[in-house]
Amino acid sequence: MKIAILFGGSSYEHEISIVSSIAMKEVLKNQIIYIFCDQYRDFFEIPHKTITSKLFSSGEYKKCDKLTIGKNGFFKKSMLGQKLLELDVVLNLTHGGDGEDGVFASMFEFFNIPYIGPRVEACSVSSHKFLTKGYASSVDVKTIDYVFYTKGDKIEISTFPVIVKPVRLGSSIGVSIVKSQEELEYACDVAFEFDDAIIIEPFISGVKEYNLAGTKIKDEFHFSIIEEPQKVEFLDFDKKYLDFSRTSKALEADISKELQEKIQDAFKKLYNTLFEGSLIRCDFFVVENEVFINEINSIPGSMANYLFSDFNALLNSLAQNLPSKKPITINYEYVNKIHSCKGK
Amino acid sequence: MKIAILFGGSSYEHEISIVSSIAMKEVLKNQIIYIFCDQYRDFFEIPHKTITSKLFSSGEYKKCDKLTIGKNGFFKKSMLGQKLLELDVVLNLTHGGDGEDGVFASMFEFFNIPYIGPRVEACSVSSHKFLTKGYASSVDVKTIDYVFYTKGDKIEISTFPVIVKPVRLGSSIGVSIVKSQEELEYACDVAFEFDDAIIIEPFISGVKEYNLAGTKIKDEFHFSIIEEPQKVEFLDFDKKYLDFSRTSKALEADISKELQEKIQDAFKKLYNTLFEGSLIRCDFFVVENEVFINEINSIPGSMANYLFSDFNALLNSLAQNLPSKKPITINYEYVNKIHSCKGK
Repeated sequence: MKIAILFGGSSYEHEISIVSSIAMKEVLKNQIIYIFCDQYRDFFEIPHKTITSKLFSSGEYKKCDKLTIGKNGFFKKSMLGQKLLELDVVLNLTHGGDGEDGVFASMFEFFNIPYIGPRVEACSVSSHKFLTKGYASSVDVKTIDYVFYTKGDKIEISTFPVIVKPVRLGSSIGVSIVKSQEELEYACDVAFEFDDAIIIEPFISGVKEYNLAGTKIKDEFHFSIIEEPQKVEFLDFDKKYLDFSRTSKALEADISKELQEKIQDAFKKLYNTLFEGSLIRCDFFVVENEVFINEINSIPGSMANYLFSDFNALLNSLAQNLPSKKPITINYEYVNKIHSCKGK
Repeated sequence: MKIAILFGGSSYEHEISIVSSIAMKEVLKNQIIYIFCDQYRDFFEIPHKTITSKLFSSGEYKKCDKLTIGKNGFFKKSMLGQKLLELDVVLNLTHGGDGEDGVFASMFEFFNIPYIGPRVEACSVSSHKFLTKGYASSVDVKTIDYVFYTKGDKIEISTFPVIVKPVRLGSSIGVSIVKSQEELEYACDVAFEFDDAIIIEPFISGVKEYNLAGTKIKDEFHFSIIEEPQKVEFLDFDKKYLDFSRTSKALEADISKELQEKIQDAFKKLYNTLFEGSLIRCDFFVVENEVFINEINSIPGSMANYLFSDFNALLNSLAQNLPSKKPITINYEYVNKIHSCKGK
């Protein structure tokens, strides 16, 4: 099975997408085609053998073959016009903008390109923190309390510390922990630099964090181990960045069977039918034995490969069992009915 | 201002989109370009003068100029390669699939095409009934109670009548009112024919319905009159279909100032920042003076023009004040940092 990895994009997480994609070389046994989307949204085919992060930062990638997207796939200019790039499935590895906000998912749907990754609605729900909260409560999964503000709102907080986040970005961009009223205005300004809306949550120190990745194939859930990620006050971008290149196996968290089942149960509720076609990582908080969803990563860093015992087999099985949309046939029954009514 | 109306699409509401778009001829004073997306997702430029619904049902549209979508717009083949179609803004008038599910919105974002219509997240929230419920509760707007099922779930209902709906479609497709246990299985089968998930709500007879359309321009809301739509048990597809061609002014509902403000207030909460760039119609239920959101139409039939006193001026003002995304600059700071750390 030939997998095309699509990465880059017009995204604040463009660079970690590069790191994530290079990590796939080590963990996938497939024939891989790399398709890079640069910040100007031009596509390039990057040779598998020469891919390094420097190729992108130096601008050297522009010498690679340019691609365009169209019906059924990506096209390369050839002597005889355009040639369809041979691939079986696209793995969407564009973190943040373009990848996780539904843009690529929509284009794949429109152009009829099979892909592993979140579908449009799953993108909206997971990339917008405010919608994540609403969705989670609908499927009966707890979330941390929050308040939601848009630009120009009067922001009033009575209890500190709090955590201030732009509603849309991932990887801790624009996020601040605020310990007092004095720091609040600046933190909100920073968050509003990145988005038109922010959420503010109480910052709970000493909270336990657990990450679980998984997917659903033929109505069966396949879970990774549960990991307790390395604890820092909160993950800053540099730390997260290095995390995206992980390929060595993680350690399983030492938790009770009961808590493990609670976490898996919350994952199932969140995954629902909405995330079919994707392999996601859910980051949970546990407070007094209660499970709260913190974040749904619809395209986790390096696909959370380090949490699975046989990532390669799992991803290939997912690739062979992607959801398909029912074709819609338009027969103009109603238009014809109107014409016959009108007698014209 | 030259407005391109994009309509059709791979959608169960393809035909009503045609009717809706033709109605625009009567209400917009702009120069209009018609761009038709057929069921195979090929684009055609339809001459303004000859547009009739019969052109599409007969297949005659295939003789019109074919277009492709790309950077900054739509392209027409010319002697010298490709020519960019001149337009100032696209009005997305594709009801249902492609238009209201985020596909076109995503493509406009990716290809940098200015458009009037719901953005991706707004599409997800309004086109998926289950997500509408979660979102509404997050912004503190009431919704009718519901239960949510996916294929294969055991469906248990104790009180009738109920209304069974596929989660995704609009225009009453696949919707049934169920009065007894005996009818339930068939109604659910019908709904599952169209979707992998359904919602079931109590059917409240005698409920008052009110529709309000509006938009936000430069942070100011612009509301239509509130209409009490014509009452039938529920609108079937034929009835709705004819509704999409409405261009004559509606009558204002005879309600108290207090109720009017309650309805407008609920609209504001729902519109939020999420629906910026679009003109939407919210359909509310009122039970015992409490306002419930029933449906958010992110691309209402014939743009709900019949509810506004000066639709043409409003739409043109919206076209000139569309939300813009902040450009993202990628400077490869992190990639460079890694290289300097690694010493390579």
